[in-house]
Amino acid sequence: MRIISENRCFEGVQGVYAHDAKATGTEMTFGLFLPEEAEDGPVPLLWYLSGLTCTHENAMTKAGAQAWAAEHGVGLVFPDTSPRGEGVANDEAYDLGQGAGFYVNATQDPWAKHFRMWDYVAEELPALLLSEFAIDPDRQSITGHSMGGHGALTLAMRLPGRFRSVSAFAPIAQPTQSDWGRKQLGAYLGTDEAAWLDHDSTHLMTELGFDGPVLVDQGASDQFLDLLRPEALAGAMMARRQEGTFRMQKGYDHSYFFVQSFMADHLAFHAEALWK
Amino acid sequence: MRIISENRCFEGVQGVYAHDAKATGTEMTFGLFLPEEAEDGPVPLLWYLSGLTCTHENAMTKAGAQAWAAEHGVGLVFPDTSPRGEGVANDEAYDLGQGAGFYVNATQDPWAKHFRMWDYVAEELPALLLSEFAIDPDRQSITGHSMGGHGALTLAMRLPGRFRSVSAFAPIAQPTQSDWGRKQLGAYLGTDEAAWLDHDSTHLMTELGFDGPVLVDQGASDQFLDLLRPEALAGAMMARRQEGTFRMQKGYDHSYFFVQSFMADHLAFHAEALWK
Repeated sequence: MRIISENRCFEGVQGVYAHDAKATGTEMTFGLFLPEEAEDGPVPLLWYLSGLTCTHENAMTKAGAQAWAAEHGVGLVFPDTSPRGEGVANDEAYDLGQGAGFYVNATQDPWAKHFRMWDYVAEELPALLLSEFAIDPDRQSITGHSMGGHGALTLAMRLPGRFRSVSAFAPIAQPTQSDWGRKQLGAYLGTDEAAWLDHDSTHLMTELGFDGPVLVDQGASDQFLDLLRPEALAGAMMARRQEGTFRMQKGYDHSYFFVQSFMADHLAFHAEALWK
Repeated sequence: MRIISENRCFEGVQGVYAHDAKATGTEMTFGLFLPEEAEDGPVPLLWYLSGLTCTHENAMTKAGAQAWAAEHGVGLVFPDTSPRGEGVANDEAYDLGQGAGFYVNATQDPWAKHFRMWDYVAEELPALLLSEFAIDPDRQSITGHSMGGHGALTLAMRLPGRFRSVSAFAPIAQPTQSDWGRKQLGAYLGTDEAAWLDHDSTHLMTELGFDGPVLVDQGASDQFLDLLRPEALAGAMMARRQEGTFRMQKGYDHSYFFVQSFMADHLAFHAEALWK
């Protein structure tokens, strides 16, 4: 692991690090904010998974999360959204290939060799963080935006006991029924749609649910609402009687201006679960 | 109108009043809390519609609303849930007839003569309150519990411009598809189900929505969840992109212990709309 940069930030440290990842067979970069409290011992960690086209950097610079993470004494990790590099498969479209890993392990060529983002965020990066930094493995929560909201919800439900709480900003809520999902799941996982269901939050909410609180915020003026399908996830949450809150926020779109507007609420929500 | 009782309460007055109502052809009783500020001029008003078996009294004594209404300078009105008296039709069941008006104007015998609760809460009682008390007609909001949550949501959507915000505790969210609804709507309105749709919040949310914020709380351990159908309303809210919040509260049941636990949130929610 090598240090790309470390900057003082709200009395803690905002770092960027790179390492050779076995899951993807590439060098992967991530951002990690550790609050001042990490100098004295392990701190809780909130995972933030980003959306289409993002690297580790977008949320780290634009989500406004460090202020509230510092206030609550919580670390933040910002993984990249896919493997990258010259030898890595890609597509001309913004929503497939590099920057669009969808948090799955691809089984189909040309993606299968490097696009193993599920293993990366579920196993390899957690192991690295716990070995290298002062992080409490028993106090982790997860959030994300858009494709990253999809990732956060699917990881939280399929890794019971890993996360104490899960939230999402404008998640891709039912990718098996959306053009944000069918294209990518078909490319990465093949035409057998049964294999897609493990990566559909609405399906997982119906079948598994989450053993902890759930918070979802969605902008009512989001330009991608028809692709996100919040109604499917909200219905599944309430049909399951899932502990949680679903909010439709008037006037907000899909941007980081939306994300930053509700970041304080999400950090407070996660802090309550992480510190109890 | 006659005064049944008036008690000092949080520096204001909790009154109970009775009047001869034209809508129902009966004497109707209601509770009204006015905060201290009403001594100096008109105050905003929050309507609280109650559920099956309730009179004007249950929420007035058990919902814990006056503390927060006083803090926000908001009045509270607690109407009865049906006409009552010896000459008024009734049924042996707790969920039909007296105590179970469902906030509709009955068209079928034996109910049509007195069971005109829609007109009573939508027209006659508002007119009385505005003429007799210091209430600002331009600052009204509405909430309710169970059958009253159904009433609050249906009134809010079908009277655009009347209410600035609407909330509900465990509302009967889709009565046209529930045994809490089909029986009563059939009895009061007849077998033509098209006439029922004006009293189905999920249908109204899909067709009309509400021009303001919506807040719904539902207990995840509510013993009547299958009758309430929160998943239908949550899905309809998000499909419409309705500004609002839907919360599933872990461990809470259908009682006033649930209602009082979230009353502070609901008063704060309405106060924000009423005072801006």
